[in-house]
Amino acid sequence: MPRFAYVNGRYRPHAEAAVHIEDRGYQFADGVYEVVPVDDGALVDEDPHLDRLGRSLGALEIPWPLSRANLALIGRELVRRNGIRDGLIYIQVTRGVAPRDHGFPAKARPSLVMTTRRRRPLPAHLFDVGAKVITIPDIRWRRCDIKSIGLLPNVLGKEAARRAGAFEAWQVDDAGFITEGTSTNAWIVDAAGRLVTRDPGAAILSGVTRRALLALVAGQGITVEERPFSLAEARAAREAFLTSSTSLVMPVTAIDGAPVGSGRPGPVATALRQLYAAHVDAEAGRAP
Amino acid sequence: MPRFAYVNGRYRPHAEAAVHIEDRGYQFADGVYEVVPVDDGALVDEDPHLDRLGRSLGALEIPWPLSRANLALIGRELVRRNGIRDGLIYIQVTRGVAPRDHGFPAKARPSLVMTTRRRRPLPAHLFDVGAKVITIPDIRWRRCDIKSIGLLPNVLGKEAARRAGAFEAWQVDDAGFITEGTSTNAWIVDAAGRLVTRDPGAAILSGVTRRALLALVAGQGITVEERPFSLAEARAAREAFLTSSTSLVMPVTAIDGAPVGSGRPGPVATALRQLYAAHVDAEAGRAP
Repeated sequence: MPRFAYVNGRYRPHAEAAVHIEDRGYQFADGVYEVVPVDDGALVDEDPHLDRLGRSLGALEIPWPLSRANLALIGRELVRRNGIRDGLIYIQVTRGVAPRDHGFPAKARPSLVMTTRRRRPLPAHLFDVGAKVITIPDIRWRRCDIKSIGLLPNVLGKEAARRAGAFEAWQVDDAGFITEGTSTNAWIVDAAGRLVTRDPGAAILSGVTRRALLALVAGQGITVEERPFSLAEARAAREAFLTSSTSLVMPVTAIDGAPVGSGRPGPVATALRQLYAAHVDAEAGRAP
Repeated sequence: MPRFAYVNGRYRPHAEAAVHIEDRGYQFADGVYEVVPVDDGALVDEDPHLDRLGRSLGALEIPWPLSRANLALIGRELVRRNGIRDGLIYIQVTRGVAPRDHGFPAKARPSLVMTTRRRRPLPAHLFDVGAKVITIPDIRWRRCDIKSIGLLPNVLGKEAARRAGAFEAWQVDDAGFITEGTSTNAWIVDAAGRLVTRDPGAAILSGVTRRALLALVAGQGITVEERPFSLAEARAAREAFLTSSTSLVMPVTAIDGAPVGSGRPGPVATALRQLYAAHVDAEAGRAP
């Protein structure tokens, strides 16, 4: 079956999907993106993803390329055409094509690119043994709350993790606090049994899975603290885990080669993983 | 006359010059660039620009897309085809096209895009009255020594300058020191008559014009200090100016609305502008 991408108003065969070399996304990283999971053919957390897309666009003063409703329609059509049952929709919006000049162009129409991808299976048994993370200095810009395509530091961090045999790299700020992973949010269960994850702000992207999990946890009798936590705290934590739209809730069992807690997925991460799976089931329309 | 761009091995009409939507430059800002001035049909400071391209590529472990000599040949051919007498060559190299995944792809061939542009005249009398700059917090990443295409903070800074009626925005680090402009290097002549510009390091891009000017100044009897200078120092300076391949040596006569020194281009900036112009004359093969 041919695979299609949507590019500025047209469904194009993926291999021929192209943008102009003076698209400001290509020359300036002047754009934003979202990744919406698809599960059993249904979009998971569609509204929060599109809400965040709107916030990112607003922060950069890029207009919506078309209405939010039409954007969602195109996503669904792409899922249908590409026969995606489990996977994701990738949405990228840039400020558009204009002769190269740093400031905003007087007239440019935003570019819209959408693709889909089938779910890539994670390494076998990863959830059973837990993921390893390394830590690296957070060298990113100061507006990580904007989901921009300026991901070069994240690329370098993920590559460093891979070379170290790790799943992810947790980034550490100048004060010694963990901000987040290169494409995931970071969590710990501290020595007192409290669930801790960094408070939203310019230092992290407020993850959709992160927020969904916080909402699910409310009323479960678990104390939650949204605050910075240090690398030392993480090393001494009972448990650690990470969240993202594609990793869901993933136990972290080693930080920089040292085991976290027992060195095996802990009870809280395991319970939250099940809690989140039930949320995805509901989004996908599966009976509980 | 049609205008051409060079894209991955082919000379293409500019309007049809395109890259794949999964080029990592478009999805991750995973690439670097250079701008080489063209004066009287000659490339200015070709070697230092290509040296720096090599350093940027090396820092990101992106191979040269083709030999340095061939890259220069293509630049000259593009200048010829596009009939550029005074202008610039823009060179962009990215890690190439691969299915979206943060880490480096196992096999991707680097993408190479080259364009040319005619010189855009600067606002009339700008050199005579001097440029105004504003100051903004430096929110960029920690590897500004790499000339990456991840320029979104620079875009936002330049736009802020434009809205304030200024030519450039000087970025200020957490310690109160000026790093550089969004696309230019920053200089002052301090109260003691010393020429001061930030030392090269991860906080700034080591500008080719900056380095050429430092070489020209050596032996002119001017004391030069490559060190951080504060916003307070800049405000109290006798003179200020900025440098870049397209602005050359441009006097700065106002910072955040307050005049620098006399509020008019000073003698040092004017002399250095002439010194640099003679360097460009030599590069262009014009008789002194």
